[in-house]
Amino acid sequence: RYYEYMFGQSRRRRGRRPLGARAEPELSQLQVVIESRDPGCHSYPHLASNEAYHLTVTEPVAVLKANEVWGALRGLETFSQLVHENDYGSFLVNESEIDDFPRFAHRGILLDTSRHYLPLKSILTNLDAMAFNKFNVLHWHIVDDQSFPYQSIYFPELSDKGAYSYNHIYTPTDVRLVIEYARLRGIRVIPEFDTPGHTQSWGKGQKGLLTPCYSGEQPTGSFGPVNPILNTTYNFMTKFFKEISSVFPDAYIHLGGDEVNFDCWKSNPAVKEFMKKQGFGIDYAKLESYYIQKILNIVSSYDKGYMVWQEVFDNKVQLKPETVVQVWMENNYAHELSISHWSEFVTGFTDGFTAILAAPWYLDYISYGQDWKKYYSVEPLNFPGSEKQKKLLIGGEACLWGEFVDATNLTPRLWPRASAVGERLWSSRNVTSLQDAYKRLTNHRCRMLR
Amino acid sequence: RYYEYMFGQSRRRRGRRPLGARAEPELSQLQVVIESRDPGCHSYPHLASNEAYHLTVTEPVAVLKANEVWGALRGLETFSQLVHENDYGSFLVNESEIDDFPRFAHRGILLDTSRHYLPLKSILTNLDAMAFNKFNVLHWHIVDDQSFPYQSIYFPELSDKGAYSYNHIYTPTDVRLVIEYARLRGIRVIPEFDTPGHTQSWGKGQKGLLTPCYSGEQPTGSFGPVNPILNTTYNFMTKFFKEISSVFPDAYIHLGGDEVNFDCWKSNPAVKEFMKKQGFGIDYAKLESYYIQKILNIVSSYDKGYMVWQEVFDNKVQLKPETVVQVWMENNYAHELSISHWSEFVTGFTDGFTAILAAPWYLDYISYGQDWKKYYSVEPLNFPGSEKQKKLLIGGEACLWGEFVDATNLTPRLWPRASAVGERLWSSRNVTSLQDAYKRLTNHRCRMLR
Repeated sequence: RYYEYMFGQSRRRRGRRPLGARAEPELSQLQVVIESRDPGCHSYPHLASNEAYHLTVTEPVAVLKANEVWGALRGLETFSQLVHENDYGSFLVNESEIDDFPRFAHRGILLDTSRHYLPLKSILTNLDAMAFNKFNVLHWHIVDDQSFPYQSIYFPELSDKGAYSYNHIYTPTDVRLVIEYARLRGIRVIPEFDTPGHTQSWGKGQKGLLTPCYSGEQPTGSFGPVNPILNTTYNFMTKFFKEISSVFPDAYIHLGGDEVNFDCWKSNPAVKEFMKKQGFGIDYAKLESYYIQKILNIVSSYDKGYMVWQEVFDNKVQLKPETVVQVWMENNYAHELSISHWSEFVTGFTDGFTAILAAPWYLDYISYGQDWKKYYSVEPLNFPGSEKQKKLLIGGEACLWGEFVDATNLTPRLWPRASAVGERLWSSRNVTSLQDAYKRLTNHRCRMLR
Repeated sequence: RYYEYMFGQSRRRRGRRPLGARAEPELSQLQVVIESRDPGCHSYPHLASNEAYHLTVTEPVAVLKANEVWGALRGLETFSQLVHENDYGSFLVNESEIDDFPRFAHRGILLDTSRHYLPLKSILTNLDAMAFNKFNVLHWHIVDDQSFPYQSIYFPELSDKGAYSYNHIYTPTDVRLVIEYARLRGIRVIPEFDTPGHTQSWGKGQKGLLTPCYSGEQPTGSFGPVNPILNTTYNFMTKFFKEISSVFPDAYIHLGGDEVNFDCWKSNPAVKEFMKKQGFGIDYAKLESYYIQKILNIVSSYDKGYMVWQEVFDNKVQLKPETVVQVWMENNYAHELSISHWSEFVTGFTDGFTAILAAPWYLDYISYGQDWKKYYSVEPLNFPGSEKQKKLLIGGEACLWGEFVDATNLTPRLWPRASAVGERLWSSRNVTSLQDAYKRLTNHRCRMLR
């Protein structure tokens, strides 16, 4: 089946860019060989997927060999980039032999559809761009304080009341479409449902979920993070994450856990009472850990792994060994601090858990000029640690938070800047020349625009 | 004729947004009255055009009165912004009485089509956006070092050899289209042909125009600014600006004159000889003035006024009283210096000549967050000077230089940030509330996206 699908892909590509120049050596065919016969490898990409490929371009038949279909997809992308049109309309490709594989297994783009809603078309266009750049993870930061566009099957009122409007939602069909469109490009879709903070929009459709804030004895009418002391909270989360686990086929769900503000919990008499009972004293990080632990257990029970933001690790929540911790801090000060500063955080994390790096690649922070050089020059393993520790850093993500991004500016703001991150995460450590990268990047930009 | 044209416009607008709600007072007509009968006022907008209008919205007939057609266009724009659609698909407009006129006569947007070529469609889209924001000047920085996309009638080889490619040019038809599209929106098109610096691309199609640079006795093969010592230079410029004067109907041509690097002139033996003969000593600013003076005289002879960058004034070139001097310096340091620093430059300029302000509004310098507030908070007249001096500051321009701008990012980078400049240049000095402006701006952004 995938053998057929591959040839379909390659035919389509060659259909658009027919090969062969008269009176020159001709390349008549690209043969794609998938060597693994394990169908389990091929249905949906995962962290351990093998993206390596071997491409031999000689006349009359070019051969693309890959162990898994995901490697073949990367090889087809490379092949399509080798083909170029000359001034006379002929399509040319140099004789080449390429043995290629990614340096890091997790190469992601974070899109934020809560602060501004992104139409489906923007997301799909971005998935195309990701494939051009061999990214393999869409980190879909789908909900946040500002809006809840995910239309839940069990809890439709979450988006009915929490989305910006009835039009600003992702229906189950939309979500399936994104997942399938991504899968066909070898891209995993990891949804993030961030709790207990960043949840204002959840409260609109799910009464009683958030913690009521108090001023003295009186509730103020405003709400804080998810209420961690009620059984109803966990009943809701159990059902909700059951749905999420089945809607999203990826082996991981991102559970957030960042930036929890304790003020509201501190103001709430029932929470204070609960703290006393649990023996947490006044350490609200313990309450947060208590909550997160329960959520992790819920998600684990559905056979899912989880990703979390670094605070969860900071607060010493007990994590499963395969947890992926996402390092984001210090970037607010990126313009003041040298990029080496985040290495100490990485060191912390690589103490047993796998980590991915987002800190140096917050692409929503724009500035004048060619900032891609800064992103390109990051060496992810540039932190003190043993080889074993460094192996635990499995990749990174370019993050485009949505405060100032919507469909009108998403594509030109993200690309080709993110291409620099893509190459950093795919290519060998020693590929570092900015001049060479500049040439590749400008050509690649033109290819992407076509 | 314009009366008809106006009603055509208004019908078209109301066609898109039909007015009138059932069982409510209905507005059936917008009557547009142009009071001046002088047809000379109406054919092409100019600096002294009257853009004031008076709009009365009461049932059953709204009346828009303006002295000139240009005011009527502004009033129609306002009227279209007053009309809004409610949730039931009815179009509503509040009873209103508006007496409106611009604070500054020159409200411009600078587009740079040399560093990156902009397709015609991008320019026209931008003209629409300008009309939505009541801008009235397109400062078309059409050529520069990087490329010469203007297809000259007399000297077609300038773009044949100086453009990025045969496709990256503006034909005479393209230029006419831009001018007419702008005129119908009350927007003047002022072309900038910047000399003697910023002219590398001119040299490709016009051999002998630029100064050959020397290393000792030997020409290096590279070229500097326009060669100011040859008669052939002035013969060329005479013919070239004759064409420009007739192609562009505006009363002004922008002649540039900024950032002339003297190194090449200093290296050239013939130039040095000429300096001696003229008694300029080693003051190359005098040579620059000599050149500019001649160009100004050429352009004057075609009955055109001119705009120049501030250096021309700095170098004490003799200018006609109606010259418009454009102030741009100090913006490179805008992030370090308070905006008050450019006021001293303004003070210098308002010594007899009219000036426009570009320095605080270089919108190609991007940064994270809502930088529109910075642009909005500029008070153009915030410099020491007499009332008479302040009257000489006749406007400003938002500049989007093209180093990092092309068709892929022009619109989202320029708008709605430039709207802040538009309001600053149109509205009264006392309209300064950022909160109020934010509400208007967000609504206006949605209107522009429709």
